[in-house]
Amino acid sequence: MTTRTLFELAQACGATLEGDGSRSIRGPASLRDAGEDEISFCGSAKLSRELERTRAAAVLVPHEFPVARRDLALLRCAQPSRAFDAVVRLFAPPPPAAPAGIHPSAVVEPGVELGPGASIGPLCHVGRGARIGARTVLRGRVSVGEGAVLGADCELHPGVVLYPHVRLGERCILHAGAVLGADGHGFEPTPQGWVKVPQGGTVIVEDDVEIGANTTIDRARFGATRIGRGSKLDNLVHIAHNVVLGEHGMLVAQVGVAGSTRIGRGVVIGGQVGIAGHIELGDGVQIGGGAGVTRSFPQGVELWGYPARPIQEALRGMAFVSKGESVLRRLRDLEARVAGLPAGGPAPGPAHPPYATKDEDQR
Amino acid sequence: MTTRTLFELAQACGATLEGDGSRSIRGPASLRDAGEDEISFCGSAKLSRELERTRAAAVLVPHEFPVARRDLALLRCAQPSRAFDAVVRLFAPPPPAAPAGIHPSAVVEPGVELGPGASIGPLCHVGRGARIGARTVLRGRVSVGEGAVLGADCELHPGVVLYPHVRLGERCILHAGAVLGADGHGFEPTPQGWVKVPQGGTVIVEDDVEIGANTTIDRARFGATRIGRGSKLDNLVHIAHNVVLGEHGMLVAQVGVAGSTRIGRGVVIGGQVGIAGHIELGDGVQIGGGAGVTRSFPQGVELWGYPARPIQEALRGMAFVSKGESVLRRLRDLEARVAGLPAGGPAPGPAHPPYATKDEDQR
Amino acid sequence: MTTRTLFELAQACGATLEGDGSRSIRGPASLRDAGEDEISFCGSAKLSRELERTRAAAVLVPHEFPVARRDLALLRCAQPSRAFDAVVRLFAPPPPAAPAGIHPSAVVEPGVELGPGASIGPLCHVGRGARIGARTVLRGRVSVGEGAVLGADCELHPGVVLYPHVRLGERCILHAGAVLGADGHGFEPTPQGWVKVPQGGTVIVEDDVEIGANTTIDRARFGATRIGRGSKLDNLVHIAHNVVLGEHGMLVAQVGVAGSTRIGRGVVIGGQVGIAGHIELGDGVQIGGGAGVTRSFPQGVELWGYPARPIQEALRGMAFVSKGESVLRRLRDLEARVAGLPAGGPAPGPAHPPYATKDEDQR
Repeated sequence: MTTRTLFELAQACGATLEGDGSRSIRGPASLRDAGEDEISFCGSAKLSRELERTRAAAVLVPHEFPVARRDLALLRCAQPSRAFDAVVRLFAPPPPAAPAGIHPSAVVEPGVELGPGASIGPLCHVGRGARIGARTVLRGRVSVGEGAVLGADCELHPGVVLYPHVRLGERCILHAGAVLGADGHGFEPTPQGWVKVPQGGTVIVEDDVEIGANTTIDRARFGATRIGRGSKLDNLVHIAHNVVLGEHGMLVAQVGVAGSTRIGRGVVIGGQVGIAGHIELGDGVQIGGGAGVTRSFPQGVELWGYPARPIQEALRGMAFVSKGESVLRRLRDLEARVAGLPAGGPAPGPAHPPYATKDEDQR
Repeated sequence: MTTRTLFELAQACGATLEGDGSRSIRGPASLRDAGEDEISFCGSAKLSRELERTRAAAVLVPHEFPVARRDLALLRCAQPSRAFDAVVRLFAPPPPAAPAGIHPSAVVEPGVELGPGASIGPLCHVGRGARIGARTVLRGRVSVGEGAVLGADCELHPGVVLYPHVRLGERCILHAGAVLGADGHGFEPTPQGWVKVPQGGTVIVEDDVEIGANTTIDRARFGATRIGRGSKLDNLVHIAHNVVLGEHGMLVAQVGVAGSTRIGRGVVIGGQVGIAGHIELGDGVQIGGGAGVTRSFPQGVELWGYPARPIQEALRGMAFVSKGESVLRRLRDLEARVAGLPAGGPAPGPAHPPYATKDEDQR
Repeated sequence: MTTRTLFELAQACGATLEGDGSRSIRGPASLRDAGEDEISFCGSAKLSRELERTRAAAVLVPHEFPVARRDLALLRCAQPSRAFDAVVRLFAPPPPAAPAGIHPSAVVEPGVELGPGASIGPLCHVGRGARIGARTVLRGRVSVGEGAVLGADCELHPGVVLYPHVRLGERCILHAGAVLGADGHGFEPTPQGWVKVPQGGTVIVEDDVEIGANTTIDRARFGATRIGRGSKLDNLVHIAHNVVLGEHGMLVAQVGVAGSTRIGRGVVIGGQVGIAGHIELGDGVQIGGGAGVTRSFPQGVELWGYPARPIQEALRGMAFVSKGESVLRRLRDLEARVAGLPAGGPAPGPAHPPYATKDEDQR
């Protein structure tokens, strides 16, 4: 078990220490879960109750944050949550070694080019003519298809599959079980059943993309399905053929994007969102979790709901539905009141029976 | 093809046989699908029509259940559906052998500890310093990361990936393609794009947990993502970083739980449910399929809908929406009726035009 | 880089060429993305603006389609989108070689039967007694369980897992990471927690089925989970135990079908649809993306919404919700108008206070 002194930790996160710098700390924890040799952080007054109760030895807090307890060591800094990253890094176990070259159990076909420092781990299979960039690491049990091209400094975790000719930029991280380049789901209806539409394109992933575990990105029918630079895809995401995702997109887990949809720069898409095919979403669109986007929206719109609408509309719709009982009661009351009134002048004759019966509410 | 006599089958499931015990049976089937050498079960009067028509040779039925047909052998027992498990077990093919030790094609790094009877199947990769409990079976093509710890009597199916330092309790079953310990999806927005937040924690899976195929459970930012004892996760479930799931949870397929959410004991979560991050769900919460849970709920609540609400509210809201046509008609009728009335006394002046036109309904 | 002349391309897709047949083309692209040595297609007048602007050298268009530009070579044909498949095929890289026999790195247990021309790629594991049909290709890193049976001319991509005794028909394509035959998610509640219900059945996939990347199909409790001939399942789909899917089904990505549900022939199920267990959907049912199907529906119904209803009902419900603001305003206006009227005769006394206050809208 690694330990660090509070002095070391304060230094690592650029904080001003109030307390005993020689105190030994075993690791980071939340205010709620921390034990007495652990360090935590408190970024907002909302957590002041947890701060009062924490058993942590030390807590990162903002510079002017008032803390009543005298038994807590304090590490004062500008942004406790971000400064805490340095603490996490100090205690995180180092990644496994990834020696340059090819593990003897790996199968590397003829014509593969390996950049300097590239590491092909145990039980990997690299197809004919693939190119693996400098210092790129295939952790083990990875499949790289024929003619695939991987940039420098990528990391591919176990079980990743790149189909032939898929291309990765530099500094990409692919988590375990991600599959890039499977055939797009294209079939033509015929009297004999579905006939496969050839999927002759590829997948291009630009620099600095991270792709979550068991996420799937299909190859294009032609051209390329493209994931823009700096985009971060969570686990179990599905990206269909010919989708174009702009730079710096953030897709939370289990999102699905149907074929040929184009998504702008800097979008943020919540978990389990579904996006229809053949639509366009502008730069900076933000979509709340679980929404179902059925049509194009311009840049900057914030969406929610199923079907997705601008969030204020979606919230109004949800509020209206939750008021349904009251709406029905008010209708009944109005009908009762109006039924007791004398008939008026020449009102426009309604096409339907004028007064609903109470039974209608029970339908 | 294995066969069993009805006598053997009645004995195995503790049933009283009415019929020819020497009759030979080929296997279990549903009432609807059963052929003439097969055995089925009927647990409720709702299936009496299928019971009348079944071609099965024999049927498990409750003790006092009336059966008109004379051609069916009956196995009378307290709980036919549960007793049928014994029939299923008798006909199920035995699991493949899992010889103790390390298959010659597996790659096991230095410092790995294997408990007695542990079996490392073909083409597995076990990282440095991992500990594999007694009788635990890695079926083949499994990756166990450096320093991971697996309890006794676990079974890991092909394609499972445990990242370094993940911990499994005893008697856990991990189905094919499950990924435990991938980095949590944590990124900080900066002017240069998303910057990765270090994910220095781990995943802890307690005893008797079963995890479905291609399910993903991310490592914590710090501390541990934790799956409570006895929980059962179906396929393609996503559990984000720092989630804490209590004991005996039941998560149906494609559920997604966002980061840092805490879920109590004995929850039941239907398929495709999405649960927001940083919320708390109490013990025994039950959530209907497809719901989207956006805030905390106390113990015992039954939820449904998007956004999720207590189920009676959700159902009322859905019923209201399905009555929309009738509500609009009643509004029109009231408006028409009121328009024909003489003006009354000093009514409060509405801010909007007092009478909606019919056009409003068409918007 | 392969190139083809326009003459070759016109011939391949049976089109009449208007333009220079010797022009050399580098590949297919969309109207929007095409560069000057690329070929595209335009199937409908909706794309005429993109046609005006495209930089493509040549475009497939319908026979009588008017094209103003003189600088474009035209390939006239009946169905440009379908004819374009021939273009895609000509430029698609050939699939990797799959030499007959067993790669030296594969592990093939005793008693396996290999049909003529079958190819077991690198690092595959084939269990005892499995049968692999003629010309079937296991691309690499595939697991085939004990006693599994694969028909002729199948293709299994890397990372696919077939549990023991799973059966595939002929000409099936399984994309990377698909898992067939994991235990169904069956557990019985007991005072000691969930007890596993034995899952002794199997999975049967009929001829000409395609299964997407990381899709999971669970084995039956008894009997078989069955995927009908010609069905096409996209990525990350979940099919639970004992589901029966009819012939020629089309399931888009991330669909989930719960246990024992029976689905007819020729259904089309949109992305992220969830279908409850123990229900029946008739032939030709069509379900819009994201819907949640909670009960049985007869053949030919088109469904959408959560919960799913016939699509016209679902659309009316959604339209009603989007009119909520107007409904509330009209209610308020009516209430204000009626409040100013003299009391009428003996109206039925409402159980609730007769006039809602404005506050009710803000709840």
